[in-house]
Amino acid sequence: MTPLDYRRAGVDIDAVNESLRALKERIRSTFGPMVLGDVGHFGGLHAIPGDERRALVATTDGLGTKILLYAATGRHGDVGEDLVSHCINDIAVLGARPLFFLDYLAGDSLPPDVLVPLVGGFADACRRRGVALLGGESAEMPGVYPKGTYDVAGFLVGIVERDRIVDGSAVRPGDAILGFPSSGLHTNGYSLARKVLPEEGGSLDDRPDRLGETIGEALLRPHLCYLDPIRRLLDAGLARGFAHITGGGLVDNVPRALPSTCDARIRKGAWSVPPIFHLIRERGAIDEMEMFHVFNMGIGLVAMVPRSSTEEAIRAAGGGALAIGEVVPGTGRVRLEP
Amino acid sequence: MTPLDYRRAGVDIDAVNESLRALKERIRSTFGPMVLGDVGHFGGLHAIPGDERRALVATTDGLGTKILLYAATGRHGDVGEDLVSHCINDIAVLGARPLFFLDYLAGDSLPPDVLVPLVGGFADACRRRGVALLGGESAEMPGVYPKGTYDVAGFLVGIVERDRIVDGSAVRPGDAILGFPSSGLHTNGYSLARKVLPEEGGSLDDRPDRLGETIGEALLRPHLCYLDPIRRLLDAGLARGFAHITGGGLVDNVPRALPSTCDARIRKGAWSVPPIFHLIRERGAIDEMEMFHVFNMGIGLVAMVPRSSTEEAIRAAGGGALAIGEVVPGTGRVRLEP
Repeated sequence: MTPLDYRRAGVDIDAVNESLRALKERIRSTFGPMVLGDVGHFGGLHAIPGDERRALVATTDGLGTKILLYAATGRHGDVGEDLVSHCINDIAVLGARPLFFLDYLAGDSLPPDVLVPLVGGFADACRRRGVALLGGESAEMPGVYPKGTYDVAGFLVGIVERDRIVDGSAVRPGDAILGFPSSGLHTNGYSLARKVLPEEGGSLDDRPDRLGETIGEALLRPHLCYLDPIRRLLDAGLARGFAHITGGGLVDNVPRALPSTCDARIRKGAWSVPPIFHLIRERGAIDEMEMFHVFNMGIGLVAMVPRSSTEEAIRAAGGGALAIGEVVPGTGRVRLEP
Repeated sequence: MTPLDYRRAGVDIDAVNESLRALKERIRSTFGPMVLGDVGHFGGLHAIPGDERRALVATTDGLGTKILLYAATGRHGDVGEDLVSHCINDIAVLGARPLFFLDYLAGDSLPPDVLVPLVGGFADACRRRGVALLGGESAEMPGVYPKGTYDVAGFLVGIVERDRIVDGSAVRPGDAILGFPSSGLHTNGYSLARKVLPEEGGSLDDRPDRLGETIGEALLRPHLCYLDPIRRLLDAGLARGFAHITGGGLVDNVPRALPSTCDARIRKGAWSVPPIFHLIRERGAIDEMEMFHVFNMGIGLVAMVPRSSTEEAIRAAGGGALAIGEVVPGTGRVRLEP
């Protein structure tokens, strides 16, 4: 079998990143004095006019090609939990509390048996988190989407005290790195996963021995929401930096929460990589570094805390977190070690 | 030729509306005391915690199947102006000023020659309006989008003084109705227009005599931004209600800015319907009421002003508006009259 990587599965992350770098200046040219921070945070920070104390934080995201699995299996009602959790994590890692969410749904057609569970799922997910579903758009777009498919985008706005913004600048060498388990792939790497699992390796109903569940069950578990552990760590005054592990994996996301003078040393053996990732790696003959660059590999959130408070932080977060590494002097990179 | 309507062109507005009505209660259940107003405004209104004086306004929208024409003609750079204008209008009609915008782009692939003009167009449109392009997501989703196609969603947040929110409650019988010309279809009715024009009636390069331009030129003109005339009318203290004329046309959108005790009498002869609409109507043998229910028919914004200030309001808005009707006692409906 030829080794597969993300580029061969149809996604060229490097080319996209190159284009986005060229665009950064044009995007920055729209920033007045109200924009706090630069391009590339997990969420964008904007002042509230006339309010020196607080800022708004906004993010937008989708579910990538995972949405094809929801459409194919008819589990439309889980889409909301998945996307709302993803968006909440993106602003929570900056120290913000979510206020309201809007959803954009578009598909070939949106018959009631699709639209009602879809929008209802967004409403239910928002209610569970105390977030208002403030608006949305549902667009039937015959010709844009293949029959039976749809796409979703979510937009979330939150609020944060400006002197409580968590941007990683407080992280220092010696800090401990905590990893919070993910529930699976969350919302990233599906173009590659779908290439090696359902398409070439069998159906979503296959139940490989080592997985203990069907491939569909493993792939369709919604994104975990880390709002509670993040708030607990913040309330305990123990969080120096957070990284939400999404597209680009630990390799690309942990540096977003590191000062340029620090590296993150992460011990790959510090947690059990869930079986679904082993299955993807083996069936696709995928290089291990490529796996860590595409998938979260079982860690959905990373927190940097003072080393002397490691145990206290794990307890404060409500349990479940693992010490997976440490911050060392460096240049803002991740070093994956055995 | 069989008469065409929107349902036969693949969009069932009534079925979508029926589903959304059933969902309203589930959506309302996410509303805490911070949500001001109900489902169905042009934008959602949310309090700023601890700020009694002001509110945030948010909206999300896409371009419908017009996006297929942008993708097919390679005019990716105009998408931003179109969508940013649409979103700004949606919050400006509530009396809000725009603060920041986020874009979601997804396509089969987003090579640099598509992505750079697309995102650059959003940045340019935002800069022109003094809006920050605060964030965005660019997702390559092979398998969801047919080759060469993409979709976009925009998300805009603005701010408004709570005692200056324009919700139409100030509108009263006797008020004059001003209509502001649109630049064409803006972003609505493209599934129907594409059915009767490029697909069955010829190519985008056709130049019918009565049109004075190609069909592609007429269909691809971006949405006009009405922020300036709206702000001018508000500053002059002359605006009692605004309606942004989008999907559903004058018939569905003017009632969103009417008290339930008023009707809007609109004289269809008060303005010249642009030739593109005549062409669509004739080629599709479409009923006139259906046309007014799907398309803006040449009016992109409606303002209700005191009758005695009609001329002053037209001048204050910067010219270009026309008196197209009046508010009369009624039940919150639009009456289209000859």
